[in-house]
Amino acid sequence: MAVQIGVIGVGMIGRDHIRRLTHVLAGSQVVAVSDVDAASANEVAESLPVPAKVYGTGEELIAAPDVQSVIVCSWGPTHEQYVLAAIDAGKPVFCEKPLATTQDACSRIIDAEVRGGRRLVQVGYMRRYDAAYRAMKQVIDSGDIGAPLLLHSRHRNPSVPPHYTREMAITDTAVHDFDTVRWLLGEELVSATVLTPRPSRHGGELQDPLLMLLESASGVLVDVETSVNIRYGYDIQGEVVGEDGTVALGETSPVVVRHSGAVSGRVPADWRERFLRAYDVELQEWVDGVAAGVPPNGPSSWDGYAAAVVSDAAVEALHSGTKTAVTLGEKPALYDDGA
Amino acid sequence: MAVQIGVIGVGMIGRDHIRRLTHVLAGSQVVAVSDVDAASANEVAESLPVPAKVYGTGEELIAAPDVQSVIVCSWGPTHEQYVLAAIDAGKPVFCEKPLATTQDACSRIIDAEVRGGRRLVQVGYMRRYDAAYRAMKQVIDSGDIGAPLLLHSRHRNPSVPPHYTREMAITDTAVHDFDTVRWLLGEELVSATVLTPRPSRHGGELQDPLLMLLESASGVLVDVETSVNIRYGYDIQGEVVGEDGTVALGETSPVVVRHSGAVSGRVPADWRERFLRAYDVELQEWVDGVAAGVPPNGPSSWDGYAAAVVSDAAVEALHSGTKTAVTLGEKPALYDDGA
Amino acid sequence: MAVQIGVIGVGMIGRDHIRRLTHVLAGSQVVAVSDVDAASANEVAESLPVPAKVYGTGEELIAAPDVQSVIVCSWGPTHEQYVLAAIDAGKPVFCEKPLATTQDACSRIIDAEVRGGRRLVQVGYMRRYDAAYRAMKQVIDSGDIGAPLLLHSRHRNPSVPPHYTREMAITDTAVHDFDTVRWLLGEELVSATVLTPRPSRHGGELQDPLLMLLESASGVLVDVETSVNIRYGYDIQGEVVGEDGTVALGETSPVVVRHSGAVSGRVPADWRERFLRAYDVELQEWVDGVAAGVPPNGPSSWDGYAAAVVSDAAVEALHSGTKTAVTLGEKPALYDDGA
Amino acid sequence: MAVQIGVIGVGMIGRDHIRRLTHVLAGSQVVAVSDVDAASANEVAESLPVPAKVYGTGEELIAAPDVQSVIVCSWGPTHEQYVLAAIDAGKPVFCEKPLATTQDACSRIIDAEVRGGRRLVQVGYMRRYDAAYRAMKQVIDSGDIGAPLLLHSRHRNPSVPPHYTREMAITDTAVHDFDTVRWLLGEELVSATVLTPRPSRHGGELQDPLLMLLESASGVLVDVETSVNIRYGYDIQGEVVGEDGTVALGETSPVVVRHSGAVSGRVPADWRERFLRAYDVELQEWVDGVAAGVPPNGPSSWDGYAAAVVSDAAVEALHSGTKTAVTLGEKPALYDDGA
Repeated sequence: MAVQIGVIGVGMIGRDHIRRLTHVLAGSQVVAVSDVDAASANEVAESLPVPAKVYGTGEELIAAPDVQSVIVCSWGPTHEQYVLAAIDAGKPVFCEKPLATTQDACSRIIDAEVRGGRRLVQVGYMRRYDAAYRAMKQVIDSGDIGAPLLLHSRHRNPSVPPHYTREMAITDTAVHDFDTVRWLLGEELVSATVLTPRPSRHGGELQDPLLMLLESASGVLVDVETSVNIRYGYDIQGEVVGEDGTVALGETSPVVVRHSGAVSGRVPADWRERFLRAYDVELQEWVDGVAAGVPPNGPSSWDGYAAAVVSDAAVEALHSGTKTAVTLGEKPALYDDGA
Repeated sequence: MAVQIGVIGVGMIGRDHIRRLTHVLAGSQVVAVSDVDAASANEVAESLPVPAKVYGTGEELIAAPDVQSVIVCSWGPTHEQYVLAAIDAGKPVFCEKPLATTQDACSRIIDAEVRGGRRLVQVGYMRRYDAAYRAMKQVIDSGDIGAPLLLHSRHRNPSVPPHYTREMAITDTAVHDFDTVRWLLGEELVSATVLTPRPSRHGGELQDPLLMLLESASGVLVDVETSVNIRYGYDIQGEVVGEDGTVALGETSPVVVRHSGAVSGRVPADWRERFLRAYDVELQEWVDGVAAGVPPNGPSSWDGYAAAVVSDAAVEALHSGTKTAVTLGEKPALYDDGA
Repeated sequence: MAVQIGVIGVGMIGRDHIRRLTHVLAGSQVVAVSDVDAASANEVAESLPVPAKVYGTGEELIAAPDVQSVIVCSWGPTHEQYVLAAIDAGKPVFCEKPLATTQDACSRIIDAEVRGGRRLVQVGYMRRYDAAYRAMKQVIDSGDIGAPLLLHSRHRNPSVPPHYTREMAITDTAVHDFDTVRWLLGEELVSATVLTPRPSRHGGELQDPLLMLLESASGVLVDVETSVNIRYGYDIQGEVVGEDGTVALGETSPVVVRHSGAVSGRVPADWRERFLRAYDVELQEWVDGVAAGVPPNGPSSWDGYAAAVVSDAAVEALHSGTKTAVTLGEKPALYDDGA
Repeated sequence: MAVQIGVIGVGMIGRDHIRRLTHVLAGSQVVAVSDVDAASANEVAESLPVPAKVYGTGEELIAAPDVQSVIVCSWGPTHEQYVLAAIDAGKPVFCEKPLATTQDACSRIIDAEVRGGRRLVQVGYMRRYDAAYRAMKQVIDSGDIGAPLLLHSRHRNPSVPPHYTREMAITDTAVHDFDTVRWLLGEELVSATVLTPRPSRHGGELQDPLLMLLESASGVLVDVETSVNIRYGYDIQGEVVGEDGTVALGETSPVVVRHSGAVSGRVPADWRERFLRAYDVELQEWVDGVAAGVPPNGPSSWDGYAAAVVSDAAVEALHSGTKTAVTLGEKPALYDDGA
C-alpha cells in the first residue's frame, strides 16, 4: 500500500527527498536508489529503516518491478533520459527542475508523454505548494481584485556560490518566478526583456541585480527582480495588481521582537527555511496522487517546457539587450487543464 | 518498522489523529481501534488502507501484542483508566487533554508512572509544537529580552457550542494558555484570579469574556483574556514583556489584500486552521520518539497534573471572586527536565 | 486677531508651548510670561520675535488687559491658584496636567467654574489629539465592534529620571491612560487595583512594571501596563475588545528596513517623538476655540478632577494591595457633554 | 514680523494654501491676492481675518511694497511670467508644480535666477516633506543599505477626472515620482521608457496602468507604476534596494481593526489625506526660510526644470514605445547643493 519509490540521484536534493519520504510524509517507501557514485548510493540505501536496493543505472532502477514510481534528482543533463525511460515504463515520475536542459529535450519528453496518452510527469516547481502563493492564487481566481494587470516579483538571495554565472540568475533563480507567474495568471508568457541596473559590489563578475520584464498573452506586465547577493536574507516578495485591488505575499516572521529601538521580524536565512513546507506538501500530494492512480496535478511536462522556453528567451534578452519573443510550440490537448 | 498504534476513541479528534497518522505523517500504522460505539469503531477500522483490528474495550486494545503504543481520544472521564493500563503494560501513551478530569486521577497516573520508573505519557497540548510559540520560547530562552516580567495572552473564539458552560472558558479554553505559559516561562504558576468584565451580548448565560490573572513562582504576572464569542475569528495573541524588550506572536495571514479602502489579512476561522500544523508536528515528534525508543519530550503527566491544578484553582477563583492559590504536590524527579 | 496669550511658567514644557505658539501654530501671540525665576522669564520674553512683557506673578499676568487667555505650565502645586485666578478673570485657561495636585483643589476649581457659569478650563491631556487614538475612538463610536468589554493599554518608557518614585508610575505615567480610557469609553472608572509583578532589574528601588486594573461604570475591564525601564523605546499600545471585533493602535514606524536577517521598524525614542503632533493639534484647536469665543472641547476641569480621583484610588490600591473604589462627586451639568 | 505673502491664483490649491497660511501655520499673513476671476479674488480676500488687498494682475501683486514673498497657484501656462516677475522683483516665490509648462520656459526661469545671483524659487513637490520619505532618505544617506541599485515606486489613485489624458499619468501623476527619485538618489535621471500593460476596464480611453522605467546617472534602475483607476484607495508605495538591504515606506493606517474574519488597516482615500502634513511642513519651512532671509532649501528651479525634461522624455517614450534619453542642459553652480 505504501507507494514504492525509486530515487535516481542521491546528492543534496535527492537525500533531502529521501529523508522527507522516509521521515516526514505518509504513504511511501523508498525501495530503490541509484547514483553515478555507487558508494554514495550504497550509503544512502543502507541508512534507511528498510534498506533500499541499489541499481547500477537509472534505467535499471526504473525497470525494477517493485519500483512503482520514480523521482529524478540526478544532474540536469541526465533528466531527459530518465524521464523518457519512466514514460516508456508507464511509471509516474517526479523530476526535479529543470525538466531537461534544452527546449528540444523537453519537447521530446512531451512527445513521448503524448504518445503514451496519459500524464506521468511532474516537475519540481515547489512554489505552487507554498501556502502564501496558494492563497494569492485563490484571491486572483476569486475575481475579487478584477483582471490582473501587473505582477511584481522579488527574488532575493543573501549570496550565491562561486560557480554561479550571470545566466544562472535566469536559469536557476528567476525560472521559479517564471513558473509561478504562468501558474498564478493561468496563461503563457510571450516576451522577455532583461535590464541590468548598476551592479552590486558584492556581485563580483556577475551582473547583479537584474530586472526582468515579461509579458503574458493577455498583456499582463510582469517585473521580476533578482538580487542574489543582497546579504540581509532570503526574501521572496510578490504583488499582483488587478483592476480593483491587489494581493501581496504577507510577512513570514512567526514572532515580532521589540528591542533596541526597533520592532522587528525575521527574514528567512535561505530557501530551505522559506520553502521547507512547500517541498513537503508538493511531495505528499504527488505520493497521494500516485497511490490513488490519478494523473499528477502539479507542474507538467508542458510547464517544464514552457519554463525552458521562457528561460532561453530571457538569456537571449540578457545577451542582446532587447525584448525577445517567447515562442512556444502548440500545446497538446493532454495539458489542457492548466497553464 | 512503522510504529504500530492503537487508538482508543474514534470521535472527532480520534478520527482526525487517525487521518493524520495514516495520510499525513511518516512512520506509523494504526493497527487497532476501540470505541464505546462499536459500529463507529468498525467503520473507521474498515476505512483504513490496511484495516485495523477492532477491540471491545480500551484495555483489550492496550493488551494486544501488536499494539506498540496507544493514543487516547475517548471521553475525558475514561482517560485515567486507559493511561494507567498503558503504563501498566509499559507502552507509550499519547493522551488528548485533559490527562484526567481530577487532580487525584492525575496524581494516580503520576504515581504509576513514577513507580514504573520511566516516562511513558504525553498529553496533547499542541501549542508547544506551533512554530510561532516555539520561536517565542527561543527568544525568551536566548536571554535577549532579559527576565520575563509580564505575559499577555489572548484566546479568542468566534463562538462556542450550546453545551459550553462558564467554567469551560477555564477548563477547556484557558487550560491551553496555562500549559503554554508554564512551558514558555519554565516555571510553575502559584495563584489564579478570575475577573468578570461586562458580558458580551453574544454570550447568553455565559460570563464572557473573562480576564484571568496568574502569578508564576518567580513573580511573572500573566493575564489571559478568553473571549469565546468574539465573532470575527479565531485569534490567538501573546506577548512576553521582559526587562529589555518584548516578544509577541506575529500575524498569521499568508497574503495581504488591498481592496475597498482597506489593507487586510485573514484571521483564522477556527483552531483547526490556526493549529493544524502544530497537531502534525506534535504527533510526528511523538511517533519518532516511540520509534527511537526514547521518552516523550512533550507535555508530561506532571504537566497534565499541573494544568488540572491551575484549572481547578481558576474555577474556584471564578466562583469565589478572590485570588486562589495553586497548590501543587511535590514534583517527582522523573519530571525534572522541564516545567 | 491673533489670540493674545500669557504663559505662566517657562520651564521645559512652558518653553516648548511658547515655541509651538510662536513657530508652529497659527493665530496666536505670546504677549506675556511669568516665572518664579525672573531671569528665566526675561530671557524667554526677549527671545520672541515680538518681545513679551514679563510679570512678577502669575496673578498679575492674568490681570493684564492684553492677556486674552492663559497657559499654566508652572509647578503643579501652583496650578490651582492660577486656574482660579483665570476663572475669576473670565479668561480661558489651558492648564498642563495635573489640573491640581489634590482632589479638593480640583473641586474648588470646578466650583469656581460652575459658579461662573461657563467652561473656561482645558487640561493638557494631549493623547485625545493623537491621530491614532482619534481613529480608535471613531471606530468605537461607530458601533462597528459592538459594546466595548475589555481595554488593554501599554505604557512603556525606556527609562525614568532618578527622582521618579513608585507612585509616579500612577500619578505621572498611567494618569494619561486614565484620561484616555475615560474619553475612549465615554464613561467613568469606578475602581482601581494595582498588581506588582516581578520587578525589573533596571528599576532599582522602584516597583516596575505595574499592572493596573480599572473597571468602568458599565463594567468594561481595563488593564494598564506601565513599564518605565523597558530600555527598547517609548511604546504606547492599546486595544479595545468589543462584542464583535477589536480596534488597536497601529505601528508608527514611517519606514521598514530589511537588513541583517531582520525586517524592522522604528520604535519612538521618547514621548516627544511619539506625541509631538498631538501637542500641536491640541494647542491649535485650543487657540482656534479661544479665537472663535467658544468653550474648549478638550479635557475639562471635570476630567482633571476625575483623573485625580482615579489616580488617588490607584495610589491607595498600590499601597493597600486591594481593589479600591473610585468615588467621584456629583458631576455638574456644565460638564454634561462628555466623559 | 509675520511674513507678508501675496497669493496669485485662488482656485482649489490656492485657497487651500491660504487656509493653511492663515489657520494652520505660524509666522505668515496673506496680504494680497489676485486671480483672473476678480470676484473669486474678492471673495477670498474678504474672508480672511484681516482682509487682503486684491490686485488686478499677478504682476501688480508682485510689485506691491507690502508683498514680501509670492505664492503662485495660477493656471500652469501663467507660471513662467509670475515667477520671472518675482525674480525680477527680488522676492522669494513658491510656485506650485509645474514650474512651467515647457523646458524652455523652465530654462528662462533658471537663466533669470542665475543672473540674479541668488535662489529665490521653490517648486511645490511636497513629497520631500513627507515624514516617511524623509525617513527613507535618511536611511539611504546613512549608507546602511549600501549603494542604491533599484527603486520601486507605486503611485495609485482610486480614479481620475474625465479630462485626464493618458499623458497626464506622466505629466501630472508620475512627475511627483520623478522628483522624489531624483531627490532620494541625489542624482539625475538619464533615460525613460514607458510600458503599457493590459489596460484596466476602469480606464476607458486611457492607457492605465503604466510602468515607467528610468535610469539614473549612476545606473540605478527605477520602475514607477501608475495605476490611476485602482478603486481601492490612494496608495503610495516605495522601496529602495541597496547592496546590503532595503528600505520601504511603511503602512500608514493609524489603527488596526479586527472584524469579520479580517485584520485590516485603512488605505488613504486621496492625496489630501495621504500628504496633508507634507503640505503643511513644506509651506512652514518655506515661510520660516523667508522670515530668516535664507535661500529656500526645497525643490529649486533646477528641480522644476529637470522634472519637465524627464516628463517630456517619458511622454515621448510613451508615444514612441522606445527608451528615450533625458537630456539636461548644464547645471548652473547656483544649484550645486542638491539633485
